[in-house]
Amino acid sequence: MLRIAICGGSGYAGSELLRILSLHPQVEVTAVTSEKSAGKKVTDLFPHLVKYNRLIYEPLDKEQLLPKADVFFMALPHAASQEAVDFFFKKGRKVIDLSADYRLSDPLIYEEWYKTPHNYKETLKKAVYGLPELYRKDIKKARLVANPGCYPTGAILALYPAIKEGLIDAKSIIVDSKSGISGAGRKAEIALSFCEVNEGLKAYRIGVHRHTPEIEQEISAIAGKKIKINFTPHLVPIDRGIISTVYGKMLKDMNTADVLSIYKKIYAKEPFVRILDENNFPNVKYVRGSNYCQIGLKVNNRTNTLIVVSAIDNLVKGASGLAVQNMNVMMGFEETAGLKDLALVP
Amino acid sequence: MLRIAICGGSGYAGSELLRILSLHPQVEVTAVTSEKSAGKKVTDLFPHLVKYNRLIYEPLDKEQLLPKADVFFMALPHAASQEAVDFFFKKGRKVIDLSADYRLSDPLIYEEWYKTPHNYKETLKKAVYGLPELYRKDIKKARLVANPGCYPTGAILALYPAIKEGLIDAKSIIVDSKSGISGAGRKAEIALSFCEVNEGLKAYRIGVHRHTPEIEQEISAIAGKKIKINFTPHLVPIDRGIISTVYGKMLKDMNTADVLSIYKKIYAKEPFVRILDENNFPNVKYVRGSNYCQIGLKVNNRTNTLIVVSAIDNLVKGASGLAVQNMNVMMGFEETAGLKDLALVP
Amino acid sequence: MLRIAICGGSGYAGSELLRILSLHPQVEVTAVTSEKSAGKKVTDLFPHLVKYNRLIYEPLDKEQLLPKADVFFMALPHAASQEAVDFFFKKGRKVIDLSADYRLSDPLIYEEWYKTPHNYKETLKKAVYGLPELYRKDIKKARLVANPGCYPTGAILALYPAIKEGLIDAKSIIVDSKSGISGAGRKAEIALSFCEVNEGLKAYRIGVHRHTPEIEQEISAIAGKKIKINFTPHLVPIDRGIISTVYGKMLKDMNTADVLSIYKKIYAKEPFVRILDENNFPNVKYVRGSNYCQIGLKVNNRTNTLIVVSAIDNLVKGASGLAVQNMNVMMGFEETAGLKDLALVP
Amino acid sequence: MLRIAICGGSGYAGSELLRILSLHPQVEVTAVTSEKSAGKKVTDLFPHLVKYNRLIYEPLDKEQLLPKADVFFMALPHAASQEAVDFFFKKGRKVIDLSADYRLSDPLIYEEWYKTPHNYKETLKKAVYGLPELYRKDIKKARLVANPGCYPTGAILALYPAIKEGLIDAKSIIVDSKSGISGAGRKAEIALSFCEVNEGLKAYRIGVHRHTPEIEQEISAIAGKKIKINFTPHLVPIDRGIISTVYGKMLKDMNTADVLSIYKKIYAKEPFVRILDENNFPNVKYVRGSNYCQIGLKVNNRTNTLIVVSAIDNLVKGASGLAVQNMNVMMGFEETAGLKDLALVP
Repeated sequence: MLRIAICGGSGYAGSELLRILSLHPQVEVTAVTSEKSAGKKVTDLFPHLVKYNRLIYEPLDKEQLLPKADVFFMALPHAASQEAVDFFFKKGRKVIDLSADYRLSDPLIYEEWYKTPHNYKETLKKAVYGLPELYRKDIKKARLVANPGCYPTGAILALYPAIKEGLIDAKSIIVDSKSGISGAGRKAEIALSFCEVNEGLKAYRIGVHRHTPEIEQEISAIAGKKIKINFTPHLVPIDRGIISTVYGKMLKDMNTADVLSIYKKIYAKEPFVRILDENNFPNVKYVRGSNYCQIGLKVNNRTNTLIVVSAIDNLVKGASGLAVQNMNVMMGFEETAGLKDLALVP
Repeated sequence: MLRIAICGGSGYAGSELLRILSLHPQVEVTAVTSEKSAGKKVTDLFPHLVKYNRLIYEPLDKEQLLPKADVFFMALPHAASQEAVDFFFKKGRKVIDLSADYRLSDPLIYEEWYKTPHNYKETLKKAVYGLPELYRKDIKKARLVANPGCYPTGAILALYPAIKEGLIDAKSIIVDSKSGISGAGRKAEIALSFCEVNEGLKAYRIGVHRHTPEIEQEISAIAGKKIKINFTPHLVPIDRGIISTVYGKMLKDMNTADVLSIYKKIYAKEPFVRILDENNFPNVKYVRGSNYCQIGLKVNNRTNTLIVVSAIDNLVKGASGLAVQNMNVMMGFEETAGLKDLALVP
Repeated sequence: MLRIAICGGSGYAGSELLRILSLHPQVEVTAVTSEKSAGKKVTDLFPHLVKYNRLIYEPLDKEQLLPKADVFFMALPHAASQEAVDFFFKKGRKVIDLSADYRLSDPLIYEEWYKTPHNYKETLKKAVYGLPELYRKDIKKARLVANPGCYPTGAILALYPAIKEGLIDAKSIIVDSKSGISGAGRKAEIALSFCEVNEGLKAYRIGVHRHTPEIEQEISAIAGKKIKINFTPHLVPIDRGIISTVYGKMLKDMNTADVLSIYKKIYAKEPFVRILDENNFPNVKYVRGSNYCQIGLKVNNRTNTLIVVSAIDNLVKGASGLAVQNMNVMMGFEETAGLKDLALVP
Repeated sequence: MLRIAICGGSGYAGSELLRILSLHPQVEVTAVTSEKSAGKKVTDLFPHLVKYNRLIYEPLDKEQLLPKADVFFMALPHAASQEAVDFFFKKGRKVIDLSADYRLSDPLIYEEWYKTPHNYKETLKKAVYGLPELYRKDIKKARLVANPGCYPTGAILALYPAIKEGLIDAKSIIVDSKSGISGAGRKAEIALSFCEVNEGLKAYRIGVHRHTPEIEQEISAIAGKKIKINFTPHLVPIDRGIISTVYGKMLKDMNTADVLSIYKKIYAKEPFVRILDENNFPNVKYVRGSNYCQIGLKVNNRTNTLIVVSAIDNLVKGASGLAVQNMNVMMGFEETAGLKDLALVP
């Protein structure tokens, strides 16, 4: 059994890692950390994780943790993750970092958007961006995987074939995303309280959300040139799920069926990407609790615009499920191990 | 007291008219129609409308209804409204039509999008599009007002100053809207049932929604040239509210504060439009149950794009509240009569 | 215009007072306090309260507040209210206290359940329990009204006729209540965050909730003897509303229609209590945002049990609406002034 | 691989059977029926069931179905199930009936509450009530299992130890249950539409719900005498989950800890029943999507009452998960096979 440590296990990314790994046949969670909840049982915070009723949160003491695990999942806040990732990586462990600290390959862009220095630039060069649909071969050989952000995962999967095949003008891209509330984390804030969120609906951080440069980095890499995008996130009163509606001006004279066939071909072998038939559009309800990404699209010939819609569960394909998928690829396990659950509907 | 009849009173537009008019000091509802619910009490369908516990649904018998009311609110389905509107209008009554039948001034466009002929083209010419922020003077003199659709109301109010002042390239406009479920009406459909809708989130009718030509008609009129737009509606599991996020390429070198000051100036005297300060964005929660429209905006200088977000309650400012506002303007009443409620929060 | 001060205006009871009073024709809010939010505008916390965009929170400085208002609504936390209430009362003002501090006439019971001493026992003797359906005559003459708790309001209105008429064995009473989340207040707590609450459902504080002695006090007063009850509150993921399902063993041989006619008779003149016809049961949805209490009931002849269900909006009839109703009674205003809104549905 | 047929697969019980069985290592679904949806793919109705994208609904033709499967799960409406169950049972198949048709051992009681005759009284005698916690030995030997109703499952598990050990007066029992909306089934009804249900909360069918005699049958069997109970179901706007709050007058002088230790002992070996520690109460959120039943309890010494609260997912432990558990017991499989999922939180 592969031994797993989870650093930062008191948030939703951590609890989802525990839930998903509980069904994985080849691993065992041997340690989970939390500064605030050190000494508490996992089930004190998450009464549903009954299989972990003997697992106790411990403080993140790197030297003590090192011998306990073969793979480290890091679910720490941004900036806090840098040093711990570097430590376990340099000690030869495999590391999957769910924070943003190793996602942006250019440390200057990281520093500009996250307002904090990057102190481990050499280690940063070793990190592979953990989207198997784009980088499976690199992930297989990697020891450090930067797990993508939730919005970028949905946006990039929606845009990848269109940009790769030169279907749309990369300068025209608009990403309008709608997220469930778990994306904001597990926090004590009035703004996140039920009565402030429920029956509400709003845009936030328009044009300045930190996932913007991450989407731009990957879109630029696909396009082979620097691209800037518009990204507008919205909050929707549901627990889980992200819909990303992306728009781009068509460069080719194609209809919906043509573009669909390109998308279906490119994603044909992907175990977790489903391209829907014409006139079908995804619903976060149909991916909730699962690692699937659903994609539907439409060419609007009146306006010469491609509209692609993707749906993911932000905590699974957008975070912890993707992290386990990355681990499976890194370890040579069956890629779907631990991730076979269908969505929970209704 | 002005006597009011509501034709088509068993849906949410009808029940909201009853709710709102119950607080209006100058009117009295004398008749309400429903074919299916004829003979039932209003409170059988809507137990909260306790002030109407003696009002009984009757079938829509035009001759019988005519002498009962001075103003007719028509909340019938599209196509079904045409003839009844024409009848009451020709008999000299004031008519406010909440259906789409008299919104599109070009009957060919109506027939193309609604797949049904328009049989009252002369009456159609008399109809005024009922958005007081744009057409107050015309509404004052009108006897037939076509009450705008819910999505168009939010989208047009968001776009009006930007297009009027030539701030954005009208050919680049994208309207990405998110609506609560009451917009779909009061119907027995599995797709609208709680368990299919709750915790879901999806786009629908991408590029083909019937509110598209309505937005285009009004945007074109403001711009002074034919404009086509992208319009993507989404369904969000809340009862009420629409957020419209609209995008346009900036034609002028301005920042957010500049554009905000233009918006504030243009809407300065509007009783129901609120422009939010910089870095504030609207939330449907803060307009729920009220006739207000909140607008926030941002100039993204990285991408040279204006992003405007509007929030309305689709059943109030997006339907029945706006209809009462139109009545107030037509009758010379105080424009806010019956519409003084603040939003219900939480 | 009667001048109103609201002490403790940054919670939901406070914001609801402001919302309701904005429609009241005879009053004007001249001051609102909050320690944490002093200096902020009311609309900074509650963007929907647009009519109060010039009202600024101030600290609760009793001497400074005294000359500003004729009536003081106190929406402070329990214990914190005692002294301020006493001060304004002794200075001759009319006071309506929404905290629990003056509800329990026996200070020993207060001290037992609230774990804090009561330091104003003489003033406590002057307080009238503010349920107009039971104590209208006393409220008319009172200068200090203790506004009932949300659960007690629903439970007492459900039980009053049954106990008054000796229909049920007072020793057998069970009150099983289900509340929306706003009842927990406006707080930054993980346990109140959207993702912890949404799609959840639970009982809490079984047998030890502080509203227990308040219900017992009033039920005992009606019955003319000491009564203890079972009270179990539950949390339901909705913003507003309380359903109280109360059970009592029948002492008389009656059927549902018999009991309904007793309830209808006793509440015949009450402007805000609605007894539903047989086989109809209340829904919080139909009272949301309104000051109504709906009551439905059933005699289960198989088990010889009376089951009564009441529905209120916990923030209106269960708090701020009731407080305004009490003010109306105290001041000799029309009892429904400011409270004419029908429920907001859907 | 054991071959499974699901009769009545277009509702939520059917879709949940498919979801759960997709993870079961020893079975294969070979047929699924639906009259209305015959010819459609399972994924047309349930886009999340991607592993069944080749499974097509067929009409329920008993002769054609017979050779296709070893075990038949019957998820037909009440009354419709009688004949089909009888047919497959007599042909030697193992049958698990999720309808109510074989739950009530006394056909007269069935006929009284379900207003329809029972035409297969001999087969009825062979049916075992499928609650493994009470009848595991009988289920092991059974060929026909009547899968319990959702409310009875939660109520009986909450009451079983208390009645078995004589802790409470069986005549005093009140069961106050709160259910998510999926319990009402997958139907096109205005009353089940999102806008009618959301933000609502109500009691329904007070004293006359058909699960009443089912709870009474099992409670009576445990008590060894005829017992009648009060049962009040409520609807809560969540997708899944039932909280049952049960009340009984204590016959013994015990405190909470004493009763908890009895409950823990009786359920010690049950894989799916979790007794919570003192002062902890269950939340449907922590069992959602899982087969667990959580139980918490309190002895109220002031009123001499035991209050027990149970939480289940009505579609899993209250329907399809329990059905799979019953199949596992009948077939000698590991009892938790296919049921190892932890709850999906948040």
